[in-house]
Amino acid sequence: MANIHYVNPKGCMDQLSHLEVAQLTEKAKYELYSLYRNCSLAVLNSGVQSDNSRELLSKHNDFEIRLITKERGISLELHNPPPSAFVDDKMIRNIQYHLFAVLRDIVFVNVLSKRINPDDIQDSEHITNQVFSILRNANALIAGELPNLVVCWGGHSINQAEYQYCRAVGLELGYRELNIITGCGAGVMEAPMKGAAIGHANQRYKNSRLIGITEPSIIASEPPNPIVNELIIMPDIEKRLEAFVRMGHGIIIFPGGPGTFEELLFILGIKLNPDNQAQKLPVILTGPKQSADYFASIDRFIGETLGKEAQKMYQIIIDDPVTVARHMKKAMNEIQLNRRKNNQSYSFNWALKISSEFQTPFIPTHQNMENLNLHMNQSKMDLTANLRRVFSAIVAGNIKPETQDLIATKGKFKLQGEAHLMEKVDRILQDFIKQNRMKLPSKNAYEPCYEIVK
Amino acid sequence: MANIHYVNPKGCMDQLSHLEVAQLTEKAKYELYSLYRNCSLAVLNSGVQSDNSRELLSKHNDFEIRLITKERGISLELHNPPPSAFVDDKMIRNIQYHLFAVLRDIVFVNVLSKRINPDDIQDSEHITNQVFSILRNANALIAGELPNLVVCWGGHSINQAEYQYCRAVGLELGYRELNIITGCGAGVMEAPMKGAAIGHANQRYKNSRLIGITEPSIIASEPPNPIVNELIIMPDIEKRLEAFVRMGHGIIIFPGGPGTFEELLFILGIKLNPDNQAQKLPVILTGPKQSADYFASIDRFIGETLGKEAQKMYQIIIDDPVTVARHMKKAMNEIQLNRRKNNQSYSFNWALKISSEFQTPFIPTHQNMENLNLHMNQSKMDLTANLRRVFSAIVAGNIKPETQDLIATKGKFKLQGEAHLMEKVDRILQDFIKQNRMKLPSKNAYEPCYEIVK
Amino acid sequence: MANIHYVNPKGCMDQLSHLEVAQLTEKAKYELYSLYRNCSLAVLNSGVQSDNSRELLSKHNDFEIRLITKERGISLELHNPPPSAFVDDKMIRNIQYHLFAVLRDIVFVNVLSKRINPDDIQDSEHITNQVFSILRNANALIAGELPNLVVCWGGHSINQAEYQYCRAVGLELGYRELNIITGCGAGVMEAPMKGAAIGHANQRYKNSRLIGITEPSIIASEPPNPIVNELIIMPDIEKRLEAFVRMGHGIIIFPGGPGTFEELLFILGIKLNPDNQAQKLPVILTGPKQSADYFASIDRFIGETLGKEAQKMYQIIIDDPVTVARHMKKAMNEIQLNRRKNNQSYSFNWALKISSEFQTPFIPTHQNMENLNLHMNQSKMDLTANLRRVFSAIVAGNIKPETQDLIATKGKFKLQGEAHLMEKVDRILQDFIKQNRMKLPSKNAYEPCYEIVK
Amino acid sequence: MANIHYVNPKGCMDQLSHLEVAQLTEKAKYELYSLYRNCSLAVLNSGVQSDNSRELLSKHNDFEIRLITKERGISLELHNPPPSAFVDDKMIRNIQYHLFAVLRDIVFVNVLSKRINPDDIQDSEHITNQVFSILRNANALIAGELPNLVVCWGGHSINQAEYQYCRAVGLELGYRELNIITGCGAGVMEAPMKGAAIGHANQRYKNSRLIGITEPSIIASEPPNPIVNELIIMPDIEKRLEAFVRMGHGIIIFPGGPGTFEELLFILGIKLNPDNQAQKLPVILTGPKQSADYFASIDRFIGETLGKEAQKMYQIIIDDPVTVARHMKKAMNEIQLNRRKNNQSYSFNWALKISSEFQTPFIPTHQNMENLNLHMNQSKMDLTANLRRVFSAIVAGNIKPETQDLIATKGKFKLQGEAHLMEKVDRILQDFIKQNRMKLPSKNAYEPCYEIVK
Repeated sequence: MANIHYVNPKGCMDQLSHLEVAQLTEKAKYELYSLYRNCSLAVLNSGVQSDNSRELLSKHNDFEIRLITKERGISLELHNPPPSAFVDDKMIRNIQYHLFAVLRDIVFVNVLSKRINPDDIQDSEHITNQVFSILRNANALIAGELPNLVVCWGGHSINQAEYQYCRAVGLELGYRELNIITGCGAGVMEAPMKGAAIGHANQRYKNSRLIGITEPSIIASEPPNPIVNELIIMPDIEKRLEAFVRMGHGIIIFPGGPGTFEELLFILGIKLNPDNQAQKLPVILTGPKQSADYFASIDRFIGETLGKEAQKMYQIIIDDPVTVARHMKKAMNEIQLNRRKNNQSYSFNWALKISSEFQTPFIPTHQNMENLNLHMNQSKMDLTANLRRVFSAIVAGNIKPETQDLIATKGKFKLQGEAHLMEKVDRILQDFIKQNRMKLPSKNAYEPCYEIVK
Repeated sequence: MANIHYVNPKGCMDQLSHLEVAQLTEKAKYELYSLYRNCSLAVLNSGVQSDNSRELLSKHNDFEIRLITKERGISLELHNPPPSAFVDDKMIRNIQYHLFAVLRDIVFVNVLSKRINPDDIQDSEHITNQVFSILRNANALIAGELPNLVVCWGGHSINQAEYQYCRAVGLELGYRELNIITGCGAGVMEAPMKGAAIGHANQRYKNSRLIGITEPSIIASEPPNPIVNELIIMPDIEKRLEAFVRMGHGIIIFPGGPGTFEELLFILGIKLNPDNQAQKLPVILTGPKQSADYFASIDRFIGETLGKEAQKMYQIIIDDPVTVARHMKKAMNEIQLNRRKNNQSYSFNWALKISSEFQTPFIPTHQNMENLNLHMNQSKMDLTANLRRVFSAIVAGNIKPETQDLIATKGKFKLQGEAHLMEKVDRILQDFIKQNRMKLPSKNAYEPCYEIVK
Repeated sequence: MANIHYVNPKGCMDQLSHLEVAQLTEKAKYELYSLYRNCSLAVLNSGVQSDNSRELLSKHNDFEIRLITKERGISLELHNPPPSAFVDDKMIRNIQYHLFAVLRDIVFVNVLSKRINPDDIQDSEHITNQVFSILRNANALIAGELPNLVVCWGGHSINQAEYQYCRAVGLELGYRELNIITGCGAGVMEAPMKGAAIGHANQRYKNSRLIGITEPSIIASEPPNPIVNELIIMPDIEKRLEAFVRMGHGIIIFPGGPGTFEELLFILGIKLNPDNQAQKLPVILTGPKQSADYFASIDRFIGETLGKEAQKMYQIIIDDPVTVARHMKKAMNEIQLNRRKNNQSYSFNWALKISSEFQTPFIPTHQNMENLNLHMNQSKMDLTANLRRVFSAIVAGNIKPETQDLIATKGKFKLQGEAHLMEKVDRILQDFIKQNRMKLPSKNAYEPCYEIVK
Repeated sequence: MANIHYVNPKGCMDQLSHLEVAQLTEKAKYELYSLYRNCSLAVLNSGVQSDNSRELLSKHNDFEIRLITKERGISLELHNPPPSAFVDDKMIRNIQYHLFAVLRDIVFVNVLSKRINPDDIQDSEHITNQVFSILRNANALIAGELPNLVVCWGGHSINQAEYQYCRAVGLELGYRELNIITGCGAGVMEAPMKGAAIGHANQRYKNSRLIGITEPSIIASEPPNPIVNELIIMPDIEKRLEAFVRMGHGIIIFPGGPGTFEELLFILGIKLNPDNQAQKLPVILTGPKQSADYFASIDRFIGETLGKEAQKMYQIIIDDPVTVARHMKKAMNEIQLNRRKNNQSYSFNWALKISSEFQTPFIPTHQNMENLNLHMNQSKMDLTANLRRVFSAIVAGNIKPETQDLIATKGKFKLQGEAHLMEKVDRILQDFIKQNRMKLPSKNAYEPCYEIVK
């Protein structure tokens, strides 16, 4: 017999017009059902750790979600939800908020986007406006709040020493009343939040924000960690990255795998844009002593491929949480002065120039991979864009079901280009493999989803 | 030399995308400039009493308003604003809120409506959705707030005894922690709010809402009284009336003129709709002893034209503020139970059926007036709809510049129909004239804008 | 049959130990019953205007109040309370707060004083500590609140023009987010509060404080006006005046009678103290044009008796509410800087020196009046102290039942001293009589309670 | 060179009269300096774990604390405070609050007690009033808050499995929006708070209270764990225990050592009092599977010495956090109904009868130990009282410097009494030693501070 629960809106979706309810119900039932169901299921599994979204989904084969229309709006009807989402038959409130964030960002955002951009124009300006609209609709842009958002990037598969270190950095950030944005899964997406939560509590800081920004294709394999108190799901990887860099006021990159490196390349590509020279957006790479080699090899790769200029765009600090946090705190004050002087918003950095090659989704198909320009005879910004695509594809091949299917059918992605460059790419990928940074630890050795064509 | 002030957003319009800012600036500059300017000017004149919008506008010929685009959003640039809106060169905060409510409801609402209803469908369902969307966009629908909104209708030209009485009723409503919605001008639009404000203060009631709902064509002649703490401007008379009856939980009708009578006919028409039989929406007609005759003559007109059934839709209470307030308080509890039982919203009454003849704007032209069916051989609901249009046109002829121009050119409106009915109409209009209920007191006698063709 | 109501604590007295409950019940029942009952009755009559406390009390002969002991603390049992204190059988919340303020300040303050000053030392330091303790116990001292309290002194028997003017000044103070302290009765004690309440509402100012400070012997004849939202009852006139000048950050003196003049002499006496030279405590005398003569005659009296130095201690502003409010606003900023620099509290002015002749209660008996030194051969400060006592006695003779009884028995107070001085005293008293400033208007002419022995 | 910091009041002590400042400065400087200094130092070491208060104190030999008098009140001057209490030279806010809680509870409470109980009457009623007054003065009694306080007792020296279990119980309590009171050190004093903090965060519960109640003689060896957000220091062990049982609404006893057992005997003694038969105060003994033996041996001891009646006073639940939390949640609702029915306070259980043998401090001297009646021929309540004293003395001998000195001089405490009883005492103490429950793990074996005289 089906185990059925009814849940009322919390945090959003509690003020819908009847037309909106009708559109939403339609979309959630047909067009977007599968995506909506899976993301909802991921959120109901908050806190469960897994690198394997298929496994997670298959464990709850009989889960279903339906929108119930009432005179006053909507409710959700859940069939066979994971029991861990409930306490004494009442849904944990944080999960309830997240569940409606999924409805908002997966289903309602479609209604919204059609409204705001009816002709579906995909130029740079419209994309930025869409990112803004999604974040505003999620109440993530708080007018008047001073700059205090630190983006924390890094892997969800990190070792114990790294986890402790990330938490220590989070604690020092929290002590200084800084808030955290991460990718919302485990590992680096969780540890700094845990630290910050304690730091905030010790400072009796009331506006603690622990924001997780995810996207549909990874949420299932990385359910939001339970400490996230604002969940936002952006439509694709690129909009998610744009959300990070326009909302965040500083970026810390902790140890991670190819996904983390993709993020670093994304921000470097933007900072290398000449229009962004005056931008204040500090990037710090940091980790415990044990991870020093990791950053050394990244730094070498950047130096050898993108040069000194790119290396100046970040700062590496090893094993020193206090210094990391002090740098960020200091930067916040400068950003505040700067934005006030220029009449800019604290909550959304409109002035940052993001060229469309960093905004357009890259679909990791074999064809697209083949077409990548992996030669040195292009601008550093373009090279960065293309390198980012490489690592984006490798992440997809490692964890996303549809890309895995593609590779199972058509074989590994072939990376080819200028020999000198490919050698560097090969070397850093080999490093990641050696450091077990490609996937969550499992019984089997890592099986690459790519091969370098030299 | 121009006296220039800059004003930042307050309460709304502080989170706009760059595309929205561009659209807004465009619209405010060209398409809607004159309307936008005049409504802004009216709000800056909060508290000034006048029945003559032309006079008010002409006193501030050199007033101009411009949208200033900044990286973070918009600001307003005011040229030669009325000095009464400022204290030591700082705009009074309530007026600042209202000023951005005008931008929101006059300009932004156009952007919004195009988004929500791109094909501009004007059926009953879409109109209701639009009313809802405007109110939601004005943050006027507060999820979870228990039923407590009393609509107060009545004239802005009432005598001292009536003013005192309205304030006394407001005080008793305020003592019982009920909130007030009115049409936001002077007279009955102000007195119950004043009373309620004191009642709320004496009960230390924190959620005091004094909501004024107006529309573009009357705001200039009835600037919001300074006690209004939520200002909403609906696009036309009909949507304004719909906003009243869907947001409000009970209606009190105080003495007034033809506008008040139009409002009574509107709510009677809705209550006479068989679909609304189960609806709880108490209507009380009340005034001091001196106004008893006024209600007697209204009651007679209703009885003679719409019959007993219509008379049962309201209750007349003379000179007893406490009883009026107790009735309303009691009704609130019943409405709450009823809506909870039926899973209905407390903040917007979706279930109330409003047929399209009460939703469609009636443009008071000579042609439209001629076409009105003023005979008894129609349903009571239809007759009510047509009678409402008669009084709506008379209000327009009395105070709206464009209708006054029309009459100046083409002559008075001709009211013609079934002799028996026309006689009743004539009689009640004569009563209104005798009671000085047609216009604000002035040196000159009232000059009718209509003539009855018998 | 007795009409009995039970009332639970609100605002204070809700956290008492069992020993305190026992002490309180005892005191309220025997020692202090009559005083406690009468003050409670006055509060229950909030808003009723009367100059005659006997009349008010006699109208409610059958009123009684009892403390009810419960396991968790106390409740009040009221027999035959004035019905105006209730709405639908529930006490108006503001009155409920005030009722427990009476219990706190009349009864509990006795328990408190015995604790804090067990040996009942009455030196200047202990008196100031007691004033502080009573205000702290009333939650009237808000740590961290910036200087914003304007004391408004003046008569409760003022004419319509004066009332309007006081309200206009209050409005301008409220517009500038200043709070008000008055003596809590009618007239000047009410009008500026009314204005300020509207100013606060228009500025959406959330921390509106309308503080009434009274004392047991006048509360019955001047029940708190209903707009007071913090009621404090000080044990005697002198402590009440000390509370005004230590809590307030600026003083406005409106037209009034001998009581108002007593207050002016009090603050002049303090400002004339050489220790207070560096003190910032602006005093403004203001009124409408019609009251200009009143201030002229006061100014002449001060000039002729206390000299130029005393005249410099205040500023007279006629018919200009905006200038009055701007002066006060400007002074607040200076006071804030000054106190911060000197590590002084914003909420209680410990540094102000009040010599004991201004702290010690003056009992207006015939003997004490005879003993007054009314000669010019004393310091200006001492002369001011003695003149204050003269006017204090005249106030008592005008409105306090026990002093009226004394005069009925022993004859009028005899004022005697240096001829030149007595002439000035006579002249200003004659002025007050002519201006109807001695008592609330009544059928009978004012019958002086004193005679000048020339 | 001394490292000096100045700290302003936070949370309390910010509204003192000048007389109070003088008294406080005097006391803190002379009479109470050493105690005040050491407790302050303990608080500044929040989060540092140690069982050895001497070690902790000696590490900060050069620490000094002074009260600085300013016009507006007091500040603290700290010489050489532990750097861990600061972030970028600013004191962590939670520690700042705790530091002033020490001033309040160690120094000011003396001023307070003298006021409230000037004749220092030490009967049962006055002691309870004192406990109430201290808690009220600490703002720990929140009027209107529904019953939700769960007391968690247990050791600060527990193993990893027990720590995890306690945290899991805390999480389940937190999920159910229950708050926590503990003894405020490490181990069981911390783990349930950590769990509850996460549970509260997940439920977005805003009124999270994590209360630590300690006393001067143990605070130095058990500095408050950093998660405590309300710190209260009661004057002695007995008042601390009384505070627990009058504030708390339910009690959970986790694994611990002799101190925990003392706490169990305290509550059993109270529950065995016939006057408390109707009292609702659930006691649950709980731990992970690994600790089952521990509770078995306690249960056996209770059964063999105090009998079935006493065993009925608690419930043992092994390895089931959800059931523990559900029991507590259910009890809260019953307590609420019960107290409301009887007009009792939710925040302080006045009705609980505590006989004076459980209120009077027991000083563990050799003489007092010798005088203990350890025979079965007394009432169960008296026997419980005497057994509690035995374990209280053993705790003192284990960790309190002054008792350790006493034992070093005069030899171990001798426990003597009825052979049968002494055998049971011996057995349970042996069990505690075997289970390493006597002290924090150290290199050396536990050296008993007592010997059983058989």
